[in-house]
Amino acid sequence: MLNLLLIFIPVAVALEYLAPGQHLLVFAASALAILPLAGWLGRATENLAEHAGEGVGGLLNATFGNAAELIIALVALKAGLHDVVKASIAGSIIGNILLVLGASMLAGGMKHHQQQYSSEGARSQATMLTLATIGLILPAAYSFSVAEQVPRGLGFISITLSVVLLAVYVLFLLYSLITHRALFAGSVDFSDDGAHNQPWSVGKALGVLAIATVFIAWMSEILVGAVEPAAEELGLSNIFVGVFIVAILGNAAEHASAITAAIKNRMDLSLSIAIGSGVQVALFVAPLLVLLSLTIGPQPMDLAFSGGLVLSMLLAVLITGQIAGDGRSDWLKGVQLLSVYLILGLTYFVIPDQMAP
Amino acid sequence: MLNLLLIFIPVAVALEYLAPGQHLLVFAASALAILPLAGWLGRATENLAEHAGEGVGGLLNATFGNAAELIIALVALKAGLHDVVKASIAGSIIGNILLVLGASMLAGGMKHHQQQYSSEGARSQATMLTLATIGLILPAAYSFSVAEQVPRGLGFISITLSVVLLAVYVLFLLYSLITHRALFAGSVDFSDDGAHNQPWSVGKALGVLAIATVFIAWMSEILVGAVEPAAEELGLSNIFVGVFIVAILGNAAEHASAITAAIKNRMDLSLSIAIGSGVQVALFVAPLLVLLSLTIGPQPMDLAFSGGLVLSMLLAVLITGQIAGDGRSDWLKGVQLLSVYLILGLTYFVIPDQMAP
Amino acid sequence: MLNLLLIFIPVAVALEYLAPGQHLLVFAASALAILPLAGWLGRATENLAEHAGEGVGGLLNATFGNAAELIIALVALKAGLHDVVKASIAGSIIGNILLVLGASMLAGGMKHHQQQYSSEGARSQATMLTLATIGLILPAAYSFSVAEQVPRGLGFISITLSVVLLAVYVLFLLYSLITHRALFAGSVDFSDDGAHNQPWSVGKALGVLAIATVFIAWMSEILVGAVEPAAEELGLSNIFVGVFIVAILGNAAEHASAITAAIKNRMDLSLSIAIGSGVQVALFVAPLLVLLSLTIGPQPMDLAFSGGLVLSMLLAVLITGQIAGDGRSDWLKGVQLLSVYLILGLTYFVIPDQMAP
Repeated sequence: MLNLLLIFIPVAVALEYLAPGQHLLVFAASALAILPLAGWLGRATENLAEHAGEGVGGLLNATFGNAAELIIALVALKAGLHDVVKASIAGSIIGNILLVLGASMLAGGMKHHQQQYSSEGARSQATMLTLATIGLILPAAYSFSVAEQVPRGLGFISITLSVVLLAVYVLFLLYSLITHRALFAGSVDFSDDGAHNQPWSVGKALGVLAIATVFIAWMSEILVGAVEPAAEELGLSNIFVGVFIVAILGNAAEHASAITAAIKNRMDLSLSIAIGSGVQVALFVAPLLVLLSLTIGPQPMDLAFSGGLVLSMLLAVLITGQIAGDGRSDWLKGVQLLSVYLILGLTYFVIPDQMAP
Repeated sequence: MLNLLLIFIPVAVALEYLAPGQHLLVFAASALAILPLAGWLGRATENLAEHAGEGVGGLLNATFGNAAELIIALVALKAGLHDVVKASIAGSIIGNILLVLGASMLAGGMKHHQQQYSSEGARSQATMLTLATIGLILPAAYSFSVAEQVPRGLGFISITLSVVLLAVYVLFLLYSLITHRALFAGSVDFSDDGAHNQPWSVGKALGVLAIATVFIAWMSEILVGAVEPAAEELGLSNIFVGVFIVAILGNAAEHASAITAAIKNRMDLSLSIAIGSGVQVALFVAPLLVLLSLTIGPQPMDLAFSGGLVLSMLLAVLITGQIAGDGRSDWLKGVQLLSVYLILGLTYFVIPDQMAP
Repeated sequence: MLNLLLIFIPVAVALEYLAPGQHLLVFAASALAILPLAGWLGRATENLAEHAGEGVGGLLNATFGNAAELIIALVALKAGLHDVVKASIAGSIIGNILLVLGASMLAGGMKHHQQQYSSEGARSQATMLTLATIGLILPAAYSFSVAEQVPRGLGFISITLSVVLLAVYVLFLLYSLITHRALFAGSVDFSDDGAHNQPWSVGKALGVLAIATVFIAWMSEILVGAVEPAAEELGLSNIFVGVFIVAILGNAAEHASAITAAIKNRMDLSLSIAIGSGVQVALFVAPLLVLLSLTIGPQPMDLAFSGGLVLSMLLAVLITGQIAGDGRSDWLKGVQLLSVYLILGLTYFVIPDQMAP
């Protein structure tokens, strides 16, 4: 059904080339086109993962799970839109742990009075988010206080910090996929969702992967080109669009999976998708982009997020840790997470771009 | 016995009209007069609640539990003293979760080696406080960083945020009074405290409610009028008086209840009064005042608390969450909460008004 | 074996007097000389503690456990190097809860799949750290916002706050050594480590204590005198040297004990050494130095740490509370703590002194 949205691929292309200046329509069409493509990319990854067996399969999911997001960010990075990249990274972290997790807990909690999950696994992931947030607070603090006088320091911090974060992510994969995977029990059998479907052949999976990647990259270029003028037409700031709109596109398919899992009372899987996706963006996508920016971008990207984005991430991580730490959820927890997301959205809604803190 | 303090009603009136300039005496007399009045208001509410049955009764308690406080704040709001209103809101939250909860845990812990309570209920309330604090950090951050250039944004944030907080509070009542009231077991039977007393008739309860309200409003006007000159005479800042003196008056009666409950080893009730009262101020009183200020005040009040107040609330909420999260308490936990309250008091003690951050 | 390093006592003295200008060598030699001396001081304290019986013995350990650190700080205080004192206090807190605890959890976790400890004891100590951090945030906030206009306030806050922190520390000792020592079960039998060794006679213990103290004080003077020029030669800031080098010297011996205990699967003891040492520095050493500075230093020292140090301590305490709160540890938790320490180190590495925030 989501596949009907594939019609927006030609629509986006047509608008881009035939209707110059219709930025809002171009933005909407390319955004809608990305949704089913990201879904196909996800399914291709999962099918590949199934052929690969549990260990390598988990690795594949962990590495390419946010592939759509990574592609969008790479395109924006190449265009030199570092602010949009950072906004979409922050928005993706916030969105995963507030919007996706909140919607999952609310949806699950409306069907089930109380739901259980492994508090060890949840705490472990929440700590990873705290660690990543600390890793983003420090360059921001440096940037705020001393970067003007010692500008070269920011590059050093960004690069070394990225290497540290990536190393920690690799160790976390080792931990969650191998040495302590029992703590995440119930969170890895994606396969069960596809139920009685035959897994795709490796050839088919690789083919879909390639095609989806190419189209997402194409649509991303159209989307990224339209962000700024579309935001202006809407009277919104780039930051708002980056944090609350672009960030959601890349992993819309996963949102659906997390909510579905919660309704089926499989909260370990649901949390693993939601928080795990946030961890992946913070510890894998963000530092990878910093390192890639050294070669592909017009100029290197640093890890110094604006004070407002860092504050938003810190608050989101703080309340998520508090909510997910005890191994149980109900509808109120969903409401709590969603209302923090709403509050953040309301605040960013009125901040104009030039002032974005 | 507290009723002896009712003598301060005529004293306050006499001083106000016969001894102009005796601001300190007027302040002290009206403050002392409010203490027994708040107690009567509370008892009237509880008696009404008993007639209303458990659900609606809980709602009455939850709505009018901080009525005395609300009246004082409304009078200050009408007088345009937004700083005093904000200081007393912040002071009430801080006082409830540090002073009242700390004194309860200390008093209970000196009698009982270790006390138990529902960690789910405590965590749920602590998360509500975190949520409310996030809701107060964001307008402060907005105010600090961009409000000067985009002043209209602050009004938008304050109003929409107030609506969100009130909606969350309504949902929290639905949760704690209806769908998940088992998590708060033991915390709702106020009635048991009055033991073998006959409940009042509805008529008597309504009568007492009306009379107490009128007198509290009267005393509040005298009190609020004397805050600034009294503070000056004492060499204290308005902020200090608002946070550490005015804030305590409104719910002094509840303080006594929370401590009594702790000594009787009924920690669920004690926590429910202490933290619950803080939640009520943050999610109900504060946003209600913002919305009411649109019609009754000389000018609308926003939700942008000063940096110092926001920091104080954040730190108080942080340590309360850490202390109350594991479902057990002892005397050291009481000492920890009280010492944070003391530290905050010492800091505010030396901050002059003009500089209040 | 560590005793071989005692050779650096004469080396340091020789370099100091015979090779003027060799600051780096002087710094290194005196630093290496302090390591075994701190070990002897610790053993003397433990032996005295054994003679004194459990209660007083625990008190001795709690009071003199960081004696080496205290001596170094006193020497720096007397030299008026308040920045170095504060940096080494902050560095000691951070080092104990990130480096020592992280290394212990990693070393223990590599031998044991999962390790258990009393979550009540750990939470209690973590809350103490939060309390101390709040106590350090407030004077920093005061200093940042209003100290320029009201400078006398900072002295008042620092002194009263120090008294409060010391009082809380005394109460914490009462709690952990007497009223609730069961929560810290397994954490007090230092004696078992020395296994079948005879305890020293009181005379020998006191003698070693006196001699080690004299030598540590001597080496500390040489060390402190060389900090600034050595830092300059290395191209590092005083802050970096204070936080990440000087801070580690004083309790290197305890680091070894904590790691050894973790490997022996005695996590309660390991946590008690690591977090307990951090608590002791924050609640005992720091306020004691402030009070002592009123009489011995060239000028009083306040409790207003720089924003960067306060932020570092806050983040360290935040993640330690999250990691240690659930009563279990594994190697990933060690990696998480160590990586935060590494990230902090990387950031401070590029901050020049004049700008140290």
